[in-house]
Amino acid sequence: MDFAATKAMFHLPEGVIYLDGNSLGPLPKTATARVKAMMEEEWGELLIRGWNAAGWFTQPQVIGDKIARLIGAEAGSVTVGDTLSIRVFQALSSALDLAEVKDKSRKIILSDTGNFPTDLYMAQGLIDALGRGHQLQLAEPEAVEAMLDASVAILMLTEVDYRTGRKHDIGRLTRLAHDRGIITIWDLAHSAGAVPVDLAKAGADFAAGCTYKYLNGGPGAPAFLYVAPRHQRHINPILPGWMGHDRPFAFTHDYAPAKGIERMRIGTPPVIALAALEASLDIWDRVDMAALRMQSMRLTDLLVSQVARLCPLLELASPKDAAQRGSQISFRFKEGYAAIQALIARGIIGDFRAPDLMRFGVCPLYNDEADVMAAAAHIAAVINQRLWDEPKFLQKQAVT
Amino acid sequence: MDFAATKAMFHLPEGVIYLDGNSLGPLPKTATARVKAMMEEEWGELLIRGWNAAGWFTQPQVIGDKIARLIGAEAGSVTVGDTLSIRVFQALSSALDLAEVKDKSRKIILSDTGNFPTDLYMAQGLIDALGRGHQLQLAEPEAVEAMLDASVAILMLTEVDYRTGRKHDIGRLTRLAHDRGIITIWDLAHSAGAVPVDLAKAGADFAAGCTYKYLNGGPGAPAFLYVAPRHQRHINPILPGWMGHDRPFAFTHDYAPAKGIERMRIGTPPVIALAALEASLDIWDRVDMAALRMQSMRLTDLLVSQVARLCPLLELASPKDAAQRGSQISFRFKEGYAAIQALIARGIIGDFRAPDLMRFGVCPLYNDEADVMAAAAHIAAVINQRLWDEPKFLQKQAVT
Repeated sequence: MDFAATKAMFHLPEGVIYLDGNSLGPLPKTATARVKAMMEEEWGELLIRGWNAAGWFTQPQVIGDKIARLIGAEAGSVTVGDTLSIRVFQALSSALDLAEVKDKSRKIILSDTGNFPTDLYMAQGLIDALGRGHQLQLAEPEAVEAMLDASVAILMLTEVDYRTGRKHDIGRLTRLAHDRGIITIWDLAHSAGAVPVDLAKAGADFAAGCTYKYLNGGPGAPAFLYVAPRHQRHINPILPGWMGHDRPFAFTHDYAPAKGIERMRIGTPPVIALAALEASLDIWDRVDMAALRMQSMRLTDLLVSQVARLCPLLELASPKDAAQRGSQISFRFKEGYAAIQALIARGIIGDFRAPDLMRFGVCPLYNDEADVMAAAAHIAAVINQRLWDEPKFLQKQAVT
Repeated sequence: MDFAATKAMFHLPEGVIYLDGNSLGPLPKTATARVKAMMEEEWGELLIRGWNAAGWFTQPQVIGDKIARLIGAEAGSVTVGDTLSIRVFQALSSALDLAEVKDKSRKIILSDTGNFPTDLYMAQGLIDALGRGHQLQLAEPEAVEAMLDASVAILMLTEVDYRTGRKHDIGRLTRLAHDRGIITIWDLAHSAGAVPVDLAKAGADFAAGCTYKYLNGGPGAPAFLYVAPRHQRHINPILPGWMGHDRPFAFTHDYAPAKGIERMRIGTPPVIALAALEASLDIWDRVDMAALRMQSMRLTDLLVSQVARLCPLLELASPKDAAQRGSQISFRFKEGYAAIQALIARGIIGDFRAPDLMRFGVCPLYNDEADVMAAAAHIAAVINQRLWDEPKFLQKQAVT
């Protein structure tokens, strides 16, 4: 893999080392022209004819298949659109239906304290709406395995923890879950484009993820949903929008689900946003995930060792073993919020998560060894010289 | 209102008279540059800092307030994002909750056969999920009023029929519904930007709509949701995404709804799509809806009278009285699909809805009297000379 070549494909602002691709990836240089062409040549010139002539209708499947390759999913098993929150809601509803066919007595939806909050909120919203006695139970991440028993209907986890980068083992947990009759839902928000994922090999049931982090689709880029081919035809979607209808343009009063993954489509696809995402996925088409993972482990190891050497005040919050984490490194520091502000002022962009986590995403597509070395030096300078301890950095915490 | 000036603000392809803005509005000339600037200057340069520095977080409310003016909604009562299907699901869930507080015995969700199918599908999906014994009942549009009795919990209608343009009276039906203890949901997909709407004056409870038709936000542009201020604080969202949390960046495990309309936000807002929509709404900021309505009635009347004169074979499917319809005209014609194809080949873009409807949207912002006169002449030529009766137009019906 020629990572210098991929780095040249992104717009990276002058004077910035960007280590926040785990939150929002940078702009691919081709994305603006792609969106402009879509708007002027397709929307502008074709107008309504674009739905067929420019392939807008089938875009969610075409782009779904591009993402499928990155997460080891079967062709035709991924669709794109809506937000990750909605996708989790759909997956969980379908998983509960499938679970009840097998065993109505199981009422536990098991997740962990490292899951991203919106997944938990949506799960609770669904449980309350259904009123079928399900219960959301949160384990510590390390305790999940021990809790996989016959009371559990669904195991719903985020593979890579958004706070620390700690990584679950999808293959192992899916196997253990299946051994105990449990259906799995994997949130790949911090996995897709960050670590190799092989959903088909793992025998995963459902997965969802977003495309604005490592996949660089742009702010608010649409989410994706995976449903294992063996489950697709058994699903009655809880959100049966017309785009998931078998014949959307028959405009019948009654819903009939489309074949396969298409039944998980809901409303009109976000065509402009999908054009930006497609430009980014053209870069991903050339990426070998195994080579990317090697480089990610090398670079995150380098960040860990450099910070340990230069700045012993910072406590590593991520797993020390690169195999146990995703593509980000987090440190605990009581004054982390102000320290991140001071780093951003110096052009080192990471972010902060309450109560005390400084997060740095490391993305081989555009972060190289020189970036990591420079970032470590700046981190050490800010922390060791208490450069964060200035009024301008100690403002009330903003929403980022 | 200077409609020649607004017409100049849109890109309209050479040789095309566009009468399908009721399905997808045309490209505002400023939209491409606006999106390019958002992508390059905000996403590209600010990266993650754009959430605060460029106002991405508050965009759904800022844009919601722009739409609020067009539909007579109170400031702070409209949010933007997701699709209309999702918005209907949210509105109906909340409406059912409110209805049950007053009277648990009411189980009927009354709609009509002119409602857009996705609204009906989503309603049925919700009913099935809730399992609380609700029932979706469809009346003929003219029979709705007579069915507003004490068995009805919710009246859920699309104001302007997507097929014929027939228009319900929001004020009257809302008043009758309220008199009988019924909560209302109005789908404004074919109303916003087409006819004056005054939700506050009507005392409406919920409303939703899309922005890619008359509002010209682009293919798949995000939807909007209105919740009457008096209801907002009583709603427990069925789709409680993190962006609707009172403190999204506290990342707590438990959901707590945001104040007001913001609790109806779900996931990360579609920032690129919102930039395109905002460019379009800048045009709408200057539009006087009463003047637009006058012009719309004048132009649709002209289309009706010209077609009646030139082409008596076509049967008017829209109400004859302009006050009774929205901003489109539909004709019934057995070979309507082929006839529309023949018209499109001549540059007159309308569309077809099964089984036999030829639809023509008339949008004063960019359609003028000359367009309508020319369109009527082409329609007459195609129909009277059987120009549709050629093999190339008689292909199997495509998805548009």
